[in-house]
Amino acid sequence: MNDSVTKRLSALRMRMKERGIDVYVIPSSDFHGSEYTGDYFKAREYATGFNGSAGTAVILADSAYLWTDGRYFIQAEKQLKGSGVLLQRAGEEGVPSIEDFLKKNLLEGGVIGFDGRVVSAETGEKYQKIAEEKKGGIFWEEDLVGAVWKDRPHMSKEPFFFLEEQYFGRSAAEKISCVRKKMKEAGAKAHILASLCDIAWLLNVRGNDIRHVPVVLSYLVLTGRECIWFVQEGVVKEDQREYFEKNRIGLRPYEEIYAYAASLSDTAVLLDPEKVNYRIAGSIPENAKKIIGKNPTESMKAVKNKTETDNTIRAHIKDGVAVTKFIFWLKKRVGTGTLTELSAAEYLEKMRKEQEHFLDTSFDTICAYGENAAMMHYAAEPGRGAALKPEGFLLVDSGGHYLEGTTDITRTIALGPVTEQMKRHFTAVLRGCINLASARFLYGARGQDLDILAREPLFCMGLDYKCGTGHGVGHLLSVHEGPNAFRFGKSADRAQTAVLEEGMVTTDEPGVYLKGAYGIRTENELLCQKAEKNEYGQFMRFETITYAPIDLDAVIADDMTQRERAFLNEYHRKVYETLAFYLTEEEKLWLKENTRAI
Amino acid sequence: MNDSVTKRLSALRMRMKERGIDVYVIPSSDFHGSEYTGDYFKAREYATGFNGSAGTAVILADSAYLWTDGRYFIQAEKQLKGSGVLLQRAGEEGVPSIEDFLKKNLLEGGVIGFDGRVVSAETGEKYQKIAEEKKGGIFWEEDLVGAVWKDRPHMSKEPFFFLEEQYFGRSAAEKISCVRKKMKEAGAKAHILASLCDIAWLLNVRGNDIRHVPVVLSYLVLTGRECIWFVQEGVVKEDQREYFEKNRIGLRPYEEIYAYAASLSDTAVLLDPEKVNYRIAGSIPENAKKIIGKNPTESMKAVKNKTETDNTIRAHIKDGVAVTKFIFWLKKRVGTGTLTELSAAEYLEKMRKEQEHFLDTSFDTICAYGENAAMMHYAAEPGRGAALKPEGFLLVDSGGHYLEGTTDITRTIALGPVTEQMKRHFTAVLRGCINLASARFLYGARGQDLDILAREPLFCMGLDYKCGTGHGVGHLLSVHEGPNAFRFGKSADRAQTAVLEEGMVTTDEPGVYLKGAYGIRTENELLCQKAEKNEYGQFMRFETITYAPIDLDAVIADDMTQRERAFLNEYHRKVYETLAFYLTEEEKLWLKENTRAI
Repeated sequence: MNDSVTKRLSALRMRMKERGIDVYVIPSSDFHGSEYTGDYFKAREYATGFNGSAGTAVILADSAYLWTDGRYFIQAEKQLKGSGVLLQRAGEEGVPSIEDFLKKNLLEGGVIGFDGRVVSAETGEKYQKIAEEKKGGIFWEEDLVGAVWKDRPHMSKEPFFFLEEQYFGRSAAEKISCVRKKMKEAGAKAHILASLCDIAWLLNVRGNDIRHVPVVLSYLVLTGRECIWFVQEGVVKEDQREYFEKNRIGLRPYEEIYAYAASLSDTAVLLDPEKVNYRIAGSIPENAKKIIGKNPTESMKAVKNKTETDNTIRAHIKDGVAVTKFIFWLKKRVGTGTLTELSAAEYLEKMRKEQEHFLDTSFDTICAYGENAAMMHYAAEPGRGAALKPEGFLLVDSGGHYLEGTTDITRTIALGPVTEQMKRHFTAVLRGCINLASARFLYGARGQDLDILAREPLFCMGLDYKCGTGHGVGHLLSVHEGPNAFRFGKSADRAQTAVLEEGMVTTDEPGVYLKGAYGIRTENELLCQKAEKNEYGQFMRFETITYAPIDLDAVIADDMTQRERAFLNEYHRKVYETLAFYLTEEEKLWLKENTRAI
Repeated sequence: MNDSVTKRLSALRMRMKERGIDVYVIPSSDFHGSEYTGDYFKAREYATGFNGSAGTAVILADSAYLWTDGRYFIQAEKQLKGSGVLLQRAGEEGVPSIEDFLKKNLLEGGVIGFDGRVVSAETGEKYQKIAEEKKGGIFWEEDLVGAVWKDRPHMSKEPFFFLEEQYFGRSAAEKISCVRKKMKEAGAKAHILASLCDIAWLLNVRGNDIRHVPVVLSYLVLTGRECIWFVQEGVVKEDQREYFEKNRIGLRPYEEIYAYAASLSDTAVLLDPEKVNYRIAGSIPENAKKIIGKNPTESMKAVKNKTETDNTIRAHIKDGVAVTKFIFWLKKRVGTGTLTELSAAEYLEKMRKEQEHFLDTSFDTICAYGENAAMMHYAAEPGRGAALKPEGFLLVDSGGHYLEGTTDITRTIALGPVTEQMKRHFTAVLRGCINLASARFLYGARGQDLDILAREPLFCMGLDYKCGTGHGVGHLLSVHEGPNAFRFGKSADRAQTAVLEEGMVTTDEPGVYLKGAYGIRTENELLCQKAEKNEYGQFMRFETITYAPIDLDAVIADDMTQRERAFLNEYHRKVYETLAFYLTEEEKLWLKENTRAI
């Protein structure tokens, strides 16, 4: 693996030299700023060998660096070993941001290179400014990795389908009209959307161009009169055209977005520079007015309507049945056969597939045994999953896409005896999860204002988890969706933890990760709802919509407050009541025992 | 009172008309943006009759409004009754900000008037922009209230003294050199300070120009070579001149600051537009470069050094002795004599005065019985304090300035039987206070990230307090000091809840305020300190530095978690251990019983 990375880097450096590029930046993104991307777009993985979902490579003539965040430090360390690519642990003391690094390392007159389609307008402009300050420039017209990547996979071009009204509750026409209203408020005559989830949400279409994210590679432009979907040729079938005609949505080829953007002379264009790529923004004529703002679709799709939340709950019940059957099976089987991380994950997927309307897992299942679980986003190499023994913890973080919605759940399961310290840590994680889930708060609070509730039990033990406490979840879209999230402290961007609105769904997933020892995470999804309104204002609360037992074998009841225990008992009562109907007699008996009040 | 308000407003309106002013804005501030002001500056109180510490009057030709915040709603309602001045409850749903109000109500071509010396540069520029958008203008050269205010008090011109080194630990010369370093980093050749606490801190002087805030009315300019103190003539005595000569600090008359500012041609001037008045900023020549930034002194003085924190703890012990003696006396005396809110507050002040190095109370004592305590900043009218009966709650919020530092403490005392609901609320407030005080958190957290810990027990009961949870405390300066604070949610400005640094002192004062019934507040001061540093980062903790018993007669132990009870018991143990030495035998016995473990 690392041999080939060395070769790839030297091929890349040859081309950099030919073009006079001093530093080449390779982010993880596709042309749409997607978090997960199709194989065609995995240029950073190709160049460095690191295959985590987040990371940016920076290649210089005689050195190469990879920035990634706390979720991936351990994994990146392993995967970069021997490649010569140095790991930059983003967010740690003394580690510069990529921009600071460029400022420091770009020589006078130096050139920063990147593919203008995989870098956001915002970031591209920052790179440009850094280069200009050094009296240098940027080179963004060409995809250098593409030039050296011989066996690059094809760009995905999968069919798509229309979501039935019973699952979303609001037609594309209604949504488009809402966005037009927001455009008008912002004084915009045109609006460019490049983010795939926003487009899929707006059009009520779902596709298959990105693994685990049912979207369609496309762009969309909205003006007062026109709505144009830029989509790869052949993707829209003949019998699908009527829908677009009826909704007055024009169709154009995918690549024409740049030409279209270039045609927007003298037009006020609303765009989010974090969400359109540098090349799109750069194609808009100088005489057009760029109105910088969030995509109106972002907050509209985060606030789920009643149809969506009702459906999401149905999806979570089905998912809970699958997970519960899996845990039951796991507890019975472990120690008797030859279970591995991979075979366990397969069985879990099988349980999900048995559920009606299951479409796909919502991300690659993390099934991590023992010390592997200390890597937050561990993935076993094919055929090399660790064997499961009847001891220690197995961490399983997984989710499904159903027609009714998307799920994300983590359970940490004691496969046998666990130490007192493991139980203490498990209980602290559970307390954090419960304290956030049971929060009441006045309307106006952001996720950042509440995050400490989940973290405090761990902080008190001198522990932390190097990631946010939770993220928004899409509705049959990306399992990671903004603008709602739970984040803490210095590094958190408040804009990323939007004011919590009724109908938002956010995960609640504190954890403990001890390198070389074990990992613990308990994750439920929280649906934000209104509570009472009185003289103090509108109070808000969460409904936990994830249904699966939390392993009482690892809970120290005495470490919990009465309120926390009451919450857990009530949660478990509801889990049993909700799931029992779908289980076998044996499973039901087991669940009854394992959701007992403590 | 309200008759005279009507007359004053009509005199003011006559002058507004003469000058073509459509809207006149009267804030609470002096020329220095002080929160508390000398009597000379109480123009807003003169114009409206409302004497709370915070509020802004907006006068139109046929209407008048007063904006104030949640602390003062009840008080303002009372004081504005019959005056025709309408209360605007800032922060409540549907209540516009002053700027939005001006935008809506200023007619085309209208003129906004204000005294350019009592409005910050930042706010003045906003008013200017609003007026310009309406093709109107601003009028700021004249003090209209001053023109109609016949018996206006003189501007204070009190003597000052030098703080001895044992109390501050860092010389003026050292501090000035640190500020010059920050100026250099910001690329500034000059820096203008108008905020009185920053100036007093920098020069190690303390004065008496504002009640309860020991500062000197003055401005200060720092350049690479010069340090000039603009102070009223006659204030610096002959025998004080040596100090300034020795420290190379020039002296000039107070009013000359505007002429000096006007002389800063072609100079890069660092200033905080929130902290210098509109007239100063406006006096700086067009060809000068304004470098907008925080006053470096702001965060420097908020981070107390070891000498300061050691002294502050000494001040808090003395203050705790005074408060404990007071509570003992109160509990014994109530029901036997003719105690009132005022006589109780007098006795408390007497106890403080008996302490060595006591200089002044740090704000007007709030001694509020029964329903009066529902007004957060209640002050009994002279001679009209409510009689104290042996029942219900007395809320006492008070503090002292000692040579060693400044204190701020609130205790709510059960004078006899209290209802079950009162106890539940008292206990919830105490839990909030304890949960914040016992927080552990990673370095990088701001007050806003922790505030929910104090509020959550109340939120869970559908209650809230309409103010921040706590504020920074000055060192023998203003009892309210930024940039550290605990604030919550939507209305909170993150910049006002700075990253918590070791050495910062912040109050922790949740409360319950039930209009017409009672008020509860428990307030301790928290000194931020470093805890362990490990792989997760630098952990931080608080040390509670307020020493006085919390009334166990109002505590429901069963409502508290084990951890909360343990914290309270340990706190009470420390209170007894720290104070016992300074008490009479009788007081000691009483304190022992009233700091018992529960």
